[in-house]
Amino acid sequence: MIHASIVGGSGYTGGELLRILLSHPDVDVVQVTSRSHLGEYVYQVHPNLRKRTKLTFSDPEALQPVDVLFLALPHGQSQEKIDGYATLATHIIDLSADFRLRDPAQYHKWYGKPHASAQWLPRFVYGLPELHRMEISTARYVSGVGCNATAANLALLPAVKAGLVDLSFPVVVEIKVGSSEGGAEGNPGSHHPERSGVIRTFSAFGHRHTAEVMQELCIDHLTLTMTSVDLVRGVLATAHANVKAGVTVKDLWKAYRSAANENPFLRVVKEHRGIYRVPEPKILAGSNYADLGFEVDEDGRHLVAMCAIDNLMKGASGSAVQCMNLMFGLDEMMGLDFSGLHPI
Amino acid sequence: MIHASIVGGSGYTGGELLRILLSHPDVDVVQVTSRSHLGEYVYQVHPNLRKRTKLTFSDPEALQPVDVLFLALPHGQSQEKIDGYATLATHIIDLSADFRLRDPAQYHKWYGKPHASAQWLPRFVYGLPELHRMEISTARYVSGVGCNATAANLALLPAVKAGLVDLSFPVVVEIKVGSSEGGAEGNPGSHHPERSGVIRTFSAFGHRHTAEVMQELCIDHLTLTMTSVDLVRGVLATAHANVKAGVTVKDLWKAYRSAANENPFLRVVKEHRGIYRVPEPKILAGSNYADLGFEVDEDGRHLVAMCAIDNLMKGASGSAVQCMNLMFGLDEMMGLDFSGLHPI
Amino acid sequence: MIHASIVGGSGYTGGELLRILLSHPDVDVVQVTSRSHLGEYVYQVHPNLRKRTKLTFSDPEALQPVDVLFLALPHGQSQEKIDGYATLATHIIDLSADFRLRDPAQYHKWYGKPHASAQWLPRFVYGLPELHRMEISTARYVSGVGCNATAANLALLPAVKAGLVDLSFPVVVEIKVGSSEGGAEGNPGSHHPERSGVIRTFSAFGHRHTAEVMQELCIDHLTLTMTSVDLVRGVLATAHANVKAGVTVKDLWKAYRSAANENPFLRVVKEHRGIYRVPEPKILAGSNYADLGFEVDEDGRHLVAMCAIDNLMKGASGSAVQCMNLMFGLDEMMGLDFSGLHPI
Amino acid sequence: MIHASIVGGSGYTGGELLRILLSHPDVDVVQVTSRSHLGEYVYQVHPNLRKRTKLTFSDPEALQPVDVLFLALPHGQSQEKIDGYATLATHIIDLSADFRLRDPAQYHKWYGKPHASAQWLPRFVYGLPELHRMEISTARYVSGVGCNATAANLALLPAVKAGLVDLSFPVVVEIKVGSSEGGAEGNPGSHHPERSGVIRTFSAFGHRHTAEVMQELCIDHLTLTMTSVDLVRGVLATAHANVKAGVTVKDLWKAYRSAANENPFLRVVKEHRGIYRVPEPKILAGSNYADLGFEVDEDGRHLVAMCAIDNLMKGASGSAVQCMNLMFGLDEMMGLDFSGLHPI
Repeated sequence: MIHASIVGGSGYTGGELLRILLSHPDVDVVQVTSRSHLGEYVYQVHPNLRKRTKLTFSDPEALQPVDVLFLALPHGQSQEKIDGYATLATHIIDLSADFRLRDPAQYHKWYGKPHASAQWLPRFVYGLPELHRMEISTARYVSGVGCNATAANLALLPAVKAGLVDLSFPVVVEIKVGSSEGGAEGNPGSHHPERSGVIRTFSAFGHRHTAEVMQELCIDHLTLTMTSVDLVRGVLATAHANVKAGVTVKDLWKAYRSAANENPFLRVVKEHRGIYRVPEPKILAGSNYADLGFEVDEDGRHLVAMCAIDNLMKGASGSAVQCMNLMFGLDEMMGLDFSGLHPI
Repeated sequence: MIHASIVGGSGYTGGELLRILLSHPDVDVVQVTSRSHLGEYVYQVHPNLRKRTKLTFSDPEALQPVDVLFLALPHGQSQEKIDGYATLATHIIDLSADFRLRDPAQYHKWYGKPHASAQWLPRFVYGLPELHRMEISTARYVSGVGCNATAANLALLPAVKAGLVDLSFPVVVEIKVGSSEGGAEGNPGSHHPERSGVIRTFSAFGHRHTAEVMQELCIDHLTLTMTSVDLVRGVLATAHANVKAGVTVKDLWKAYRSAANENPFLRVVKEHRGIYRVPEPKILAGSNYADLGFEVDEDGRHLVAMCAIDNLMKGASGSAVQCMNLMFGLDEMMGLDFSGLHPI
Repeated sequence: MIHASIVGGSGYTGGELLRILLSHPDVDVVQVTSRSHLGEYVYQVHPNLRKRTKLTFSDPEALQPVDVLFLALPHGQSQEKIDGYATLATHIIDLSADFRLRDPAQYHKWYGKPHASAQWLPRFVYGLPELHRMEISTARYVSGVGCNATAANLALLPAVKAGLVDLSFPVVVEIKVGSSEGGAEGNPGSHHPERSGVIRTFSAFGHRHTAEVMQELCIDHLTLTMTSVDLVRGVLATAHANVKAGVTVKDLWKAYRSAANENPFLRVVKEHRGIYRVPEPKILAGSNYADLGFEVDEDGRHLVAMCAIDNLMKGASGSAVQCMNLMFGLDEMMGLDFSGLHPI
Repeated sequence: MIHASIVGGSGYTGGELLRILLSHPDVDVVQVTSRSHLGEYVYQVHPNLRKRTKLTFSDPEALQPVDVLFLALPHGQSQEKIDGYATLATHIIDLSADFRLRDPAQYHKWYGKPHASAQWLPRFVYGLPELHRMEISTARYVSGVGCNATAANLALLPAVKAGLVDLSFPVVVEIKVGSSEGGAEGNPGSHHPERSGVIRTFSAFGHRHTAEVMQELCIDHLTLTMTSVDLVRGVLATAHANVKAGVTVKDLWKAYRSAANENPFLRVVKEHRGIYRVPEPKILAGSNYADLGFEVDEDGRHLVAMCAIDNLMKGASGSAVQCMNLMFGLDEMMGLDFSGLHPI
């Protein structure tokens, strides 16, 4: 039995982690912390957990030693206290952005200030198993992943890995996202009458997750353009890239099918009939799958690659638990077997 | 030309008033006040008004004299300053709850504190033209209406007015509402991920609008039960009442049809085919119509009466402008001619 | 291992059954039939099941003998072929309305034609474990439940069972429902531009599920009033009833708490703070829980009882699998352990 | 008074035309045809028009001569009967795709069959006033516009017209659309449980509206990628293009501001604070505005240009009425003065 605690359990990624771990056959959740909800039952904040657990939120200052500590804190906080956390657990999975970038200069550039614990950056592995399964298996410190970065990374991964993409051309990834991405704290723009029914390109350039895709896929000319739409959970990345001369649809099929064969949570969705012919996030709510698809234009050079995920699962807590499974030698899919719903 | 100002113009009812008045052929909007957005263009808060007006938000302390002052302040503020406002305008329409109830004791009971200007209560007319058209025509002070109260009042008005309802039996009105009812200020429950897709019976008993329906329709045993659903604008009241023995469907048809004939904004919706057979709020967004419908059970005693409105129009700003039209001898429908959209 | 087949697997209840059974540790799904999708992979219709099963839709005429047959056919079909099905399986769970009513006269009244196999009606048990757990445990033939009937039944069950409700007064249940209730076949009113954002009281009286509540709770004066709202999965019943003189809130608390203690899928939601203070269907998507709540008015006589469910789970396929578990002596919760999501 | 008739009035564009024309001060609607709803009141299909008109649907074979005929038929029908229609009206505005392309070869390529009345193609002017105001003013035959083409055309028009875009680089336009684009006829994918909450990239390449943008903006390397999202009315185009070396943000500001100054329905939305900083379709429901915005990356070469419209207004019926106004020498904005709603 793995003893696990969650630091920062009242937010959406913390709640989703808790939901998964409570159903995980090999995990015992020891503590879930929250300053603002200290002493409350966790189900008062996460109403889906009513009758599932009697846990109450603990004081983050009173953490007990465990096997694995999941840090689900707002960005910037883990790097301040990482040394302390490291005395409490042999394994740490940090879901914030603090340990995703390997290069402190890149961190400084994208997050606007120097990293507080740059010496820790090389000790962390970027927590996307589809990219770093082997390293994660032997790692003690794993970062989380940006949800938008994950959709972009997985959309392009099979084609890039197979060497089919001509990265001298710019890559544009248009990402459409639901409202849970913004976290559990409201703001004027998340007020329902303002947020409902939006199609809002809130970031044309410069989204911080861009750095993670540049790092992981080694793409220099990359734009992530972010648009909010009316949905709670879900991300769809539609990536535009150029394939190298001579690359055929068959080559792409082979690359995407191989990725799906090698990775239990990747699926290729490319159908000629039915309603669900392309990847769609809505049927992924609660599941850890990433659905991939692609199309090529008549000239055979312009690739549109797609990836749909649940931002709180494959884009955050699901991938984190998948990493934990790998780190502790368990089946990668343990605790992550919910198939998603249809209709929804 | 009627000179009008809006006090409290950054909220939803204030914005809707402004939208209507800017298109009203006989009105000149002099000032729109907002403390929090002082000096900003009104279109920065109400983006639909971009390129429609160069007005900026004024200081509420610097109001100029006008013909009519619309007060769109949070509940409790108008009653504190009504004497001052009365020196600035011959006519006042107050959209808050402050002057809706005639009896100070009822105000105290439902709003939890004594009224600060009880002597003003008899000077105000309840601002629903379908109930008080004549009095409003000669009034100088008119209150606004509660949006839920309006849906309940209009659902039952034709039947009650025609003496068809047996008011010795309790009346239950189940009201379903969109999110704009809660106003422009967010709260944890209005955060999109929490508010999206809800069916939330947030008030089983004791909603303050109950008092307005009791007062206006003289119903003693009345329950308004409030449920939030996923929509921005719109209220549907489904009222359950007992009709007197011997009342026929024909009698009800006559009562509802008469109401629609006598009131330009009432329509009866009771079709046997097509998609829109019953009143529905979604097609009313932006319109001042109230759509009415009714059904009677096999035994002929249980009446279900329905009313759909746009809470910001017929349930607030639309009715207020309709009152202004009456107070100034204009055509009741002036400035209120938008038909609503289909589909939407 | 229980061998199970699903007859009529391309609809929403069939798909949901399949989703549950594929994850059920003690069930082997043998066949899933569909005439219209014969030979297609089930995941082409139910895209959430991609990579979960290689099953294809079978011919309903080529059913093999199994332990339990789930019939998920349109209403009216099971009663025509029940004798044939009974030769194929020792246990049958019919999710249609065909075997829910015990009295053939009631069936005739509510469904407009005589029952084709009235002799089978007494052999079936009404498939709501919270009402008939013992009988179901020893039954071979179990009916499904109407989703709206289930929400109404469970809202009132604790109070009625404890003798707290005065059934000489009429009971009105206002039910709000999502779009999946209408099934997988579209119609003009389910076209997204028409269905999105509706609040549509499509049935004031006479909904067929009324008969199930009258039968199961022995209520004579009952109205179910149905309103469609914008949501895919979910039902909320808000029931208005009179409690007997002298009944206290404490009595009601006791009744509802007991129900939750005795039934693993019932929960009482009645909080004084937080966002989720009352039962809400959205957090139940995919879960088999029924969340119950209640309020009483100042006079202590008017009870508002609430129940939220996922219409495809507790209101259909979830309850059916719960019955199967009971019929085969398994833990009632097996395969039904998904907690639901937050946020969603 | 202009006498106008609508051929094909039961669809969404026909209904929207009717709504506009009924409120147009200088238009008298003579007939609205529909085969499938022959003889029904138009308000039975377009419920927003109840109490606005007593018109019934006429037989398309019994059209009377009028000043202007609006053809709102499914694609392919106008070209078959254009000679006949031309005998009935001096002016024709065809909202279908039949007369949008000037080159019969392009029509053949994109619509898969030869044009049935190719000799008529040169007589039609492409009906987007922002592109062809002068020609429309003197034209007798004007085509409608593709809604997606209009969003793409207007997003890029100011920059392209000012010569700021380097069209030797490919242009990618990511377009997000609501469900009313699909028309009033349902299909399996428009069934609410399937369509609700989607983010569905249903067309990566080859959308027919591409041809209109290529023609009107003279862009050779153009991709329109289409994604459906959860909204009824609205299109947002997010266009990615390269600006020429040396072009500054100031140049772009000047181009976009000029476009807004010269065109009454264009607005620039580019704010640094508030909720509505970029173009958003939801606040445009029912309005004829096209909101434009743009961003440039750090290097100053990658332009993201945005345009939000209501697909049924600026993207179809609104532009058609704007053309009619120009053709008959009226104020371009007549009948098109609805500002849109906030919130919505």
